[in-house]
Amino acid sequence: MSEVKGKQSLRFAKTPFILNSASVVGKKEGEGPLGEYFDVIGNDDKFGCESWEEAESTLQKEAATLALGKSGLTPEEIRYIFAGDLLGQTIATSFGLLDFEIPLFGVYGACSTAGESMSLGAMCVAAGFAENVLTITSSHFASAEKQFRFPLEYGNQRPMSATWTVTGSGAYVLSTQRTHVKISGITTGKIVDYGIHDSLNMGAAMAPAAADTIAAHFADFGSKPEEYDRIITGDLGTVGQEILFDLLKKKGYDIENNHSDCGIEIFDAKEQDTDAGGSGCGCSASVLSAYYLPKIISGEWKKVLFVPTGALLSTVSYNEGKNVPGIAHGVMLEYVP
Amino acid sequence: MSEVKGKQSLRFAKTPFILNSASVVGKKEGEGPLGEYFDVIGNDDKFGCESWEEAESTLQKEAATLALGKSGLTPEEIRYIFAGDLLGQTIATSFGLLDFEIPLFGVYGACSTAGESMSLGAMCVAAGFAENVLTITSSHFASAEKQFRFPLEYGNQRPMSATWTVTGSGAYVLSTQRTHVKISGITTGKIVDYGIHDSLNMGAAMAPAAADTIAAHFADFGSKPEEYDRIITGDLGTVGQEILFDLLKKKGYDIENNHSDCGIEIFDAKEQDTDAGGSGCGCSASVLSAYYLPKIISGEWKKVLFVPTGALLSTVSYNEGKNVPGIAHGVMLEYVP
Repeated sequence: MSEVKGKQSLRFAKTPFILNSASVVGKKEGEGPLGEYFDVIGNDDKFGCESWEEAESTLQKEAATLALGKSGLTPEEIRYIFAGDLLGQTIATSFGLLDFEIPLFGVYGACSTAGESMSLGAMCVAAGFAENVLTITSSHFASAEKQFRFPLEYGNQRPMSATWTVTGSGAYVLSTQRTHVKISGITTGKIVDYGIHDSLNMGAAMAPAAADTIAAHFADFGSKPEEYDRIITGDLGTVGQEILFDLLKKKGYDIENNHSDCGIEIFDAKEQDTDAGGSGCGCSASVLSAYYLPKIISGEWKKVLFVPTGALLSTVSYNEGKNVPGIAHGVMLEYVP
Repeated sequence: MSEVKGKQSLRFAKTPFILNSASVVGKKEGEGPLGEYFDVIGNDDKFGCESWEEAESTLQKEAATLALGKSGLTPEEIRYIFAGDLLGQTIATSFGLLDFEIPLFGVYGACSTAGESMSLGAMCVAAGFAENVLTITSSHFASAEKQFRFPLEYGNQRPMSATWTVTGSGAYVLSTQRTHVKISGITTGKIVDYGIHDSLNMGAAMAPAAADTIAAHFADFGSKPEEYDRIITGDLGTVGQEILFDLLKKKGYDIENNHSDCGIEIFDAKEQDTDAGGSGCGCSASVLSAYYLPKIISGEWKKVLFVPTGALLSTVSYNEGKNVPGIAHGVMLEYVP
């Protein structure tokens, strides 16, 4: 029987495994420090499509197809898809996954969706409701700029605290089949509002939520930062990382020595002019699959807490003067010998 | 052990129960044929707020508070919320549920979200991951018009096939505590695209998805339409209902005698000038809670299939010439003596 741990966590008895995963990213991501690790790098950020939204749908389609192929599974062998993206009414997901004809649970947690979809998928497999599920998320720089900021043609200037939305998608097959990586537990986030108003400083908006979920995780599992080979946040960037360290220190936890942030890793901020780092649903999803997961599979890392973070806003909420609250969903990954 | 049934369904062994629920609606809904059944009817569709979006958040907050109160539970006793709405980046949910400080899984399935959130909540309770969860969805006529069509000030004309977005919210506490209504199973929908292009004919866009999920439900459970006291769709309206009947007849099922549609019931289309009927996440959620659930609780109805339907589009997808695919999620409700 799975254990309900503390206030926000579950430890799975019958742990789901990550059977396989895939990452598909854009040109700029391919030119960054992690370029060699991604499965597919598009030469053309439109991925042969007519619109940015279609391109983002194609990212999802390709990542899903690749994850299935690597897993040796057909779409018929996938019981459910848990998927989402950043666009209004999650249209990248709807049009990207239509052809698979697999029962779909659409999810939305802004950039935390990679953690949310993986949490729900893991719950489903751990409960015996499915042998295999697919979890997938995406983001696209150009569709996100159009949705949240300004169309590319406008050529707006960006403050140093701004993050650069990653063009990418990561897909995961979670399964009862034993592999070297199990999802041993989850810590589900609450909405946390620290009164941040600046939609171009997502890191600051999301860091309190990350701190809240990470601290809840330690409390629920009675664990300490040093037990984890790495605590990986989604896309706090350099600005958010500092805030995260400060907030966690106030709660009695020091994670400076074993923290990584997918948004910081994916770009060379100086060379690639990406300001505070990468962001978006596709950032943490593609970086976990391409760069961090192999370290767990090989046994180099034994225990990892993956905590994608989301900023909860829309242009409407922002223009109506609302704060930008955050949410973060934690997934505990462990090496299986 | 819960049973995986057929291709898209689950039958729960440890069935979750609907501990209690609540409905909050706007003035027009209160003036309609179901007016006497809703828990709260607002006199002012802004619900004392400064914007339509805030008003929609307030709908969720009030419905959630009321459902908790009726259940005799505090927010601390709710393990998870599964919630969503129709707005871009589901902001009605983010700002409506912030104050509860409960771990949140945000979901998006357009108007099918009432069924999706209830399905996920039921899976969570059935798996033993929670004793109590809250599922909640909302829609608001004015925030939806602004999001999807034209601001109210524009005074646009509406074709007869158009539906009227319901201002309302329905909240449900799903629990291990035994009551007179159990969620005995679910049938999870796939995206179904019949090539409908008209965003003002949602009924036609969603009917094929409803037919697909209902037929899958019968096939998975080996059941027949006449075994159900009622098969209740979300918001197909009069135009969608006819298409649903035709499509299901082609699949060998006749549900004409025991079909109801929340969108048809909630308004008096002629008197209230709502064209094809009501729609929105809040339509099926509020109508099930206020009007249909009491019939199961009393034992008048023994078995009901609740199938909210969603149209997957955004103004961006629509303006880029995309079709409007649909999705429908089925929830089987049974009377417990």
